[in-house]
Amino acid sequence: MSTPEVRIGVVGGSGAAGTIVRPLVRERGCENVRYFASARSAGRQLDGRVVEEATPEALSAGDVDVFLFSVGTSSSRELVPHAVRGGAVCLDKSAAFRLQDGVPLVVPEVNGERALEHEGIIAVPNCCAIPLTTVLKPLHDEAGLRRLRIATYQSVSGAGAQAMERLRAEASDAHDLRQDWEFDGEEFDEEEKLRAETRKILELPDLPVSATCVRVPVLVGHMASVWIETEAPLSAERARELLAEAPSVRLEDFPTPGKSAGRDDVLVGRIRPDRSGETGLTLLLACDNLRKGAALNGIQTMELLLSRQALAA
Amino acid sequence: MSTPEVRIGVVGGSGAAGTIVRPLVRERGCENVRYFASARSAGRQLDGRVVEEATPEALSAGDVDVFLFSVGTSSSRELVPHAVRGGAVCLDKSAAFRLQDGVPLVVPEVNGERALEHEGIIAVPNCCAIPLTTVLKPLHDEAGLRRLRIATYQSVSGAGAQAMERLRAEASDAHDLRQDWEFDGEEFDEEEKLRAETRKILELPDLPVSATCVRVPVLVGHMASVWIETEAPLSAERARELLAEAPSVRLEDFPTPGKSAGRDDVLVGRIRPDRSGETGLTLLLACDNLRKGAALNGIQTMELLLSRQALAA
Repeated sequence: MSTPEVRIGVVGGSGAAGTIVRPLVRERGCENVRYFASARSAGRQLDGRVVEEATPEALSAGDVDVFLFSVGTSSSRELVPHAVRGGAVCLDKSAAFRLQDGVPLVVPEVNGERALEHEGIIAVPNCCAIPLTTVLKPLHDEAGLRRLRIATYQSVSGAGAQAMERLRAEASDAHDLRQDWEFDGEEFDEEEKLRAETRKILELPDLPVSATCVRVPVLVGHMASVWIETEAPLSAERARELLAEAPSVRLEDFPTPGKSAGRDDVLVGRIRPDRSGETGLTLLLACDNLRKGAALNGIQTMELLLSRQALAA
Repeated sequence: MSTPEVRIGVVGGSGAAGTIVRPLVRERGCENVRYFASARSAGRQLDGRVVEEATPEALSAGDVDVFLFSVGTSSSRELVPHAVRGGAVCLDKSAAFRLQDGVPLVVPEVNGERALEHEGIIAVPNCCAIPLTTVLKPLHDEAGLRRLRIATYQSVSGAGAQAMERLRAEASDAHDLRQDWEFDGEEFDEEEKLRAETRKILELPDLPVSATCVRVPVLVGHMASVWIETEAPLSAERARELLAEAPSVRLEDFPTPGKSAGRDDVLVGRIRPDRSGETGLTLLLACDNLRKGAALNGIQTMELLLSRQALAA
């Protein structure tokens, strides 16, 4: 089965991430695509197709090979099991299953082989964990990661389409930084996700990670300032060589969210010695959080399965 | 001589920082205030006073006790020596003299005593170095600083009044992060300043410091995410106790630039163990870069001199 032949179900195609899924699927020449949504959106037209309601019956009917879920965590938790029951592979963008045993958490360039071990669900990682691990993998393979410290600069599209509308309507005098995630008294869940998912993807369960996540008044694109301590010395020059050859990575002198927006690669730059440490580097990375940070990563994972004949025909 | 009696010359009072100097001086009941500016702005009225031209003759006339300079580095380099020649003490906001031997670089709450050693010039530190050292000093006194890693989120007012106008005129779709300082091939001068000035203010000439500076689309207020390694263990709880008592510091659960704008204190919060390190903390701080980060710090230094009878009557 090739990409154009696969029967795809897009669930939640009208949200901030879902809106990116649809053109990416179309670009790949997929013809057998159906859209599913909640009762509220069902019946609407999207790209000339009528949106079907994402009922347990519709999702479990067995006539879809791959579902791409771009809905909230609670909706995923409720709906994904029905799609699995129907025999489909589910690529789920939500946090519902990411840390669950038996659910691969996949960045194709980093741990693509894990996708083949799925039991129906493959989780798409957090929008910051994807670019971070894409950049870290070749550095880890070379020098071994010892510690990570990360300060993020995350765009409002990560908070959804309504947050984008709010920023568009806001006077610049009201622009501020925010931390709009769930707080557990010490950390935001976004910071905890970044630690736990980075560990799972890189298969380094004890990697020390400290992250501070911040929302910035930019529409699309997430940036992160990262300090990387390595076990073995790793020069900035060697890191640049490794990253120049790494898949889905592009060297850029001064990465910014704006430069990453609409592009498929993770931008990485400002690669230099950590002047505060002994063996370590610091760098900036930026990534379109709606593309490689979400929809694109899921579609690339689907394509990996297809290329490995790992989807039922 | 008391604050109301001191004869003050404000040089460059119509720029982004200078605009804040004027009300701060007025609030303190200073009556003997004159404004100086370039030939282009001389003759204009500011607060009902005619702006005088900042010529070498005017600045060296000997009829001003303290000059508050809020002009660019090259203008300060040219003009400040004339004012010193006339016998005035110059509080200079620019980077012209900050690292020069014999020029105290002063944050009154941190190293105020150094101000008394001046030879005519006292430099006001960089807008990020002021809040950083204000927060670090009590932690250093308790546990000893070993290393610092800093990611900044700096508002556009740090780039001047024109940058503020550009942000106000910019559509939100065009908002992006930027690094708009001078680049030496490895670091921006802002990053180098933050290292060198922090070392000088804290009198830790070898302190390892790695900083990444980023401009965010916010009008006023600078934020920084800081990782602090200490020589001795320092719990987050103890750090909070120390900072609760520190001068010009205010604990705030979630500091942001917007919350800091218009306020005199440095906001500090998110104080927690550095989950990636052994002995260390991470925290967020935010500060009005035009007030404590610039004008206010200079005026507080002037008040320190006055309180210590360290200005000629």
